[in-house]
Amino acid sequence: MSEEPTFDAEQFTKTLTWHDPTPSFKLALSMSGLDYLTEMAEGRIPPPPIGAHIGLGFSSLAVGDVVMTAVPDASHYNPIGTVHGGFIATILDSAAGCAVHTTLPAGVGYTSIDLRVNYFRAVHAGAPIVAHGWVVKSGSRVAYAEADLHDGDGKLLAKATSSCLIIQP
Amino acid sequence: MSEEPTFDAEQFTKTLTWHDPTPSFKLALSMSGLDYLTEMAEGRIPPPPIGAHIGLGFSSLAVGDVVMTAVPDASHYNPIGTVHGGFIATILDSAAGCAVHTTLPAGVGYTSIDLRVNYFRAVHAGAPIVAHGWVVKSGSRVAYAEADLHDGDGKLLAKATSSCLIIQP
Amino acid sequence: MSEEPTFDAEQFTKTLTWHDPTPSFKLALSMSGLDYLTEMAEGRIPPPPIGAHIGLGFSSLAVGDVVMTAVPDASHYNPIGTVHGGFIATILDSAAGCAVHTTLPAGVGYTSIDLRVNYFRAVHAGAPIVAHGWVVKSGSRVAYAEADLHDGDGKLLAKATSSCLIIQP
Amino acid sequence: MSEEPTFDAEQFTKTLTWHDPTPSFKLALSMSGLDYLTEMAEGRIPPPPIGAHIGLGFSSLAVGDVVMTAVPDASHYNPIGTVHGGFIATILDSAAGCAVHTTLPAGVGYTSIDLRVNYFRAVHAGAPIVAHGWVVKSGSRVAYAEADLHDGDGKLLAKATSSCLIIQP
Repeated sequence: MSEEPTFDAEQFTKTLTWHDPTPSFKLALSMSGLDYLTEMAEGRIPPPPIGAHIGLGFSSLAVGDVVMTAVPDASHYNPIGTVHGGFIATILDSAAGCAVHTTLPAGVGYTSIDLRVNYFRAVHAGAPIVAHGWVVKSGSRVAYAEADLHDGDGKLLAKATSSCLIIQP
Repeated sequence: MSEEPTFDAEQFTKTLTWHDPTPSFKLALSMSGLDYLTEMAEGRIPPPPIGAHIGLGFSSLAVGDVVMTAVPDASHYNPIGTVHGGFIATILDSAAGCAVHTTLPAGVGYTSIDLRVNYFRAVHAGAPIVAHGWVVKSGSRVAYAEADLHDGDGKLLAKATSSCLIIQP
Repeated sequence: MSEEPTFDAEQFTKTLTWHDPTPSFKLALSMSGLDYLTEMAEGRIPPPPIGAHIGLGFSSLAVGDVVMTAVPDASHYNPIGTVHGGFIATILDSAAGCAVHTTLPAGVGYTSIDLRVNYFRAVHAGAPIVAHGWVVKSGSRVAYAEADLHDGDGKLLAKATSSCLIIQP
Repeated sequence: MSEEPTFDAEQFTKTLTWHDPTPSFKLALSMSGLDYLTEMAEGRIPPPPIGAHIGLGFSSLAVGDVVMTAVPDASHYNPIGTVHGGFIATILDSAAGCAVHTTLPAGVGYTSIDLRVNYFRAVHAGAPIVAHGWVVKSGSRVAYAEADLHDGDGKLLAKATSSCLIIQP
């Protein structure tokens, strides 16, 4: 709907870098979820491409329970100058999904069938936020996980639930 | 948890560009939602910074009904080489939120209090996907909108619902 | 926490009647969902016991699309004298679930894994309300349906979504 | 769609008794939520009419945290002979809503704007089930609560989330 725009607002740039996920995905099929994510957390498997957008890293990893940290920046702002809800959804989907993944043996996959996020407080750029994901109910066909998001002062920013379909080999 | 990683997987880069949203946000307060988004669709107001990540543009805009188009690329992939659910959530949150915004007069704001996404089919990079958002129930305190996502063949990929708190001046 | 209470408020009674669902459940396994629900709608199979509480009947039945009608009464009131959200959830869960059931061949079952209801307007006793359920996305493992609730004037009272796990024989 | 049906299946009856909620609702406006629900738990205010359908009672009540117990019976069965999801939704909506109510001072009301239930295990009649509701995030405009449901062996049967709009005087 537009020709080349020109805006008075100050312009910023950022360069993203990511790796082809194909080799690590093939590797994933032969490893338990916890082993695979541990390899990723320790830097021997590259993070998924989407990680370039959100800058997410693991703080801790255990069966059914993960903690991830991200630092949103001004590129994640919505029109009103707070972090876009989609960024928050991406982090919480990752935390809930990884929590499910840590419970799966080698050869078993999963896919999110839904994600629900409740937003409680505005999120601002420039300081780390912490996403904690945990499995509430595992199962052979469906797993149900939750994740919450806190700022550095421990204030609850958002909470999510996710149902994952378990894909048996 | 890691030192500088080295991976064998092929590496890619992409540079994002965005504008400071502050000037356009100030402008937004003086305009109806439909006028504001129309200015943005026609290129006279810059898209929000998050747009740099997802490359979203308007295809049509009417009161309570918007259509947006995006082209996911390989940077949006999750570990298994399909587009990350967070990318889809970001697009659907935008479409549902913009649909609500088009119904608001100047001076009235909104904020998402929840977003729920149901994922139906894997989304792949390289082809446009179309997000349609519409208001199901408007209100002076809460508005409820839905959005769905189709591929170029008209296949339904995902669907979302969102409740927005209306902020009266 | 209490002994026998005595209240000044006026007291009402209602007697429920229902049938053992076991015989019809056994029959259900040998019929398509549409045939089974049609038998029920036409009075040759008894409604499920829960129907005694909510007084729900079919208005129309087609593959992936059902309409049900109920008349809430004063026994369904919450503490503030409007129909309890749980009654509304029960009707919408039934409409969404039956819509899924109509799409299933003989021998294939389903079970709701989630139900989400958004409440828009207070519901009052004494007049019929109409629940329409439809399948948005069918599938061999998961089906996703929606349902909405209108009053006799066509006002939208509530809307629900439900994911059902499909149980292959 | 039917004339008077005759079924071979065994028939059962149950008589419900409830009280007009109007007097207690008027009283509620002058009391804090915790005081009001405590009066109800101790039998000095009648339970809401819907309670006649589900037989719900309080086991404990504190600010932002309630425990309720119910005993489903065969009248709550769905067509396949397990307790209908709507019964479970009704109990969890009540537990989440009452948890929010306990946090409100006199004169402040609330109304559920959504309820989401995830179903994990089939629920059977004849044994008590325990619903625990708690407030995750209170607020002057919206409160967010959760509730879960366990059987007598401590098995998790279902979990719900609810957003409530707070109605200031």
